[in-house]
Amino acid sequence: MEGETIELLSAVEDHHGGIVLSVDQPMDSTLFSSILETSMSNWRQQGKKGVWIKLPIQHSNLVDSAVKAGFRYHHAEPDYLMLVRWMPDIPDTLPANASHRVGVGAFVVNNNKEVLVVQETSGKFRGTGVWKMPTGAVNEGEDICDAAVREVKEETGIETKFVEVLAFRQSHKSFFEKSDLFFVCMLEPQSFDIQSQTSEIESAQWMPVEDYAAQPFVQENELFDFITKICFSKLDGNYTGFSSVLTCTSSGKKTYLYFNNRDANYLSAFKHEQA
Amino acid sequence: MEGETIELLSAVEDHHGGIVLSVDQPMDSTLFSSILETSMSNWRQQGKKGVWIKLPIQHSNLVDSAVKAGFRYHHAEPDYLMLVRWMPDIPDTLPANASHRVGVGAFVVNNNKEVLVVQETSGKFRGTGVWKMPTGAVNEGEDICDAAVREVKEETGIETKFVEVLAFRQSHKSFFEKSDLFFVCMLEPQSFDIQSQTSEIESAQWMPVEDYAAQPFVQENELFDFITKICFSKLDGNYTGFSSVLTCTSSGKKTYLYFNNRDANYLSAFKHEQA
Repeated sequence: MEGETIELLSAVEDHHGGIVLSVDQPMDSTLFSSILETSMSNWRQQGKKGVWIKLPIQHSNLVDSAVKAGFRYHHAEPDYLMLVRWMPDIPDTLPANASHRVGVGAFVVNNNKEVLVVQETSGKFRGTGVWKMPTGAVNEGEDICDAAVREVKEETGIETKFVEVLAFRQSHKSFFEKSDLFFVCMLEPQSFDIQSQTSEIESAQWMPVEDYAAQPFVQENELFDFITKICFSKLDGNYTGFSSVLTCTSSGKKTYLYFNNRDANYLSAFKHEQA
Repeated sequence: MEGETIELLSAVEDHHGGIVLSVDQPMDSTLFSSILETSMSNWRQQGKKGVWIKLPIQHSNLVDSAVKAGFRYHHAEPDYLMLVRWMPDIPDTLPANASHRVGVGAFVVNNNKEVLVVQETSGKFRGTGVWKMPTGAVNEGEDICDAAVREVKEETGIETKFVEVLAFRQSHKSFFEKSDLFFVCMLEPQSFDIQSQTSEIESAQWMPVEDYAAQPFVQENELFDFITKICFSKLDGNYTGFSSVLTCTSSGKKTYLYFNNRDANYLSAFKHEQA
């Protein structure tokens, strides 16, 4: 049976005293149950903690066997299901599932005080005549500052440079039980010729900022009205949001920190003095 | 068959022209496949778009049937799996899965310029002697400002009031392919007597801010060093982060907006003038 385990399931140790199993080829569910039983007994003896099974969707015939072997769901993506079982008799320290989607909105203004706006082909503003900022979802593994630049490029063809996060909003139950974080970003345009590259956009234009703010959908919505006023005070030079700085952790991982860089400017000076 | 459908599966329409199916009782997988086939054919004729199946984990015997009927995974929580199938012949507009976990860290300082710190019983700092800020994950449906207050209460017994988000950090591949957003929050202590209420914490104390900053784990990590300097410039009165304001959308939903309220103060005045 051990020979079969090695052949049919690939198991690698993780950094938390656990095991990650991958099923890479089709398998009979009875055989899978039997392999799983033997392996679990070995891992328990070895003092393993969390045991993970990554099941590609083409092996959905094995989900039921894993659940019957005491596994629960952890998370799923379109093409796989991740199951987990905590082995010790102490409360589990397994990481929680992802709880938030992350979206970005882009505030882009040219030298004529015109704001870049779009009309969408779907969603709640479709067919309403509303002109809104380009918005979109942050992709897997994508930085917020990069997502804003990408969305503007896709929806309008305009090249931009990220300036600041002006504000963000957290909302709940945005789909099923999941929450949503939405970051309003100020971007500086580097080109001006509009050309949409996606079917999601009906139309795009540069619109005088006053006309944008005068739209009923802005005026009648306390949240949009607030966001618009924040954007405008940024235009007037009276507002500082959070800019992004690439920092390095002790493990050498690069990560963006977003903070008020105007107020924190002297920090960098302090840092250089020490170095 | 239609009578059976109504009895065995509950189906409700969603707001996007789709259907959400729930399986509430045990069912034979052959019967499920047959009901699904009939229902799908009806829904296609009715022009339905996304069809969702919420499968509680106790009905894991039906996962394979749903996948064979053309459904894919959308997301999973410990106790259920959500599958979806897009019916029309146009690209799908289904919402993306949650991509980020959200965590908070709490910077709490008393009038003696002592910062509230803890030692954890697990995690990468266990047994290292490192004193760190209280941190934790935001619960499902919880606001960032509330999560910070709750974590401090659980880990130290200290009551606090949320002041500001001082900075946030986005990192990737923090578990499998999921990303992580971490918000550093400044809180004002309302009580001072430390009493931990969770087994996650080994010890907690008020520590002179200089001693906190002098720890090697802070000094040797560019990210922690940066965050610490931001916190200290807040203490010196030179820094403004994002405070939280509860706003209302047109649908009446309450949502927190986080922004630089010092710079945007005149917005509120402007708002009141208009009202």
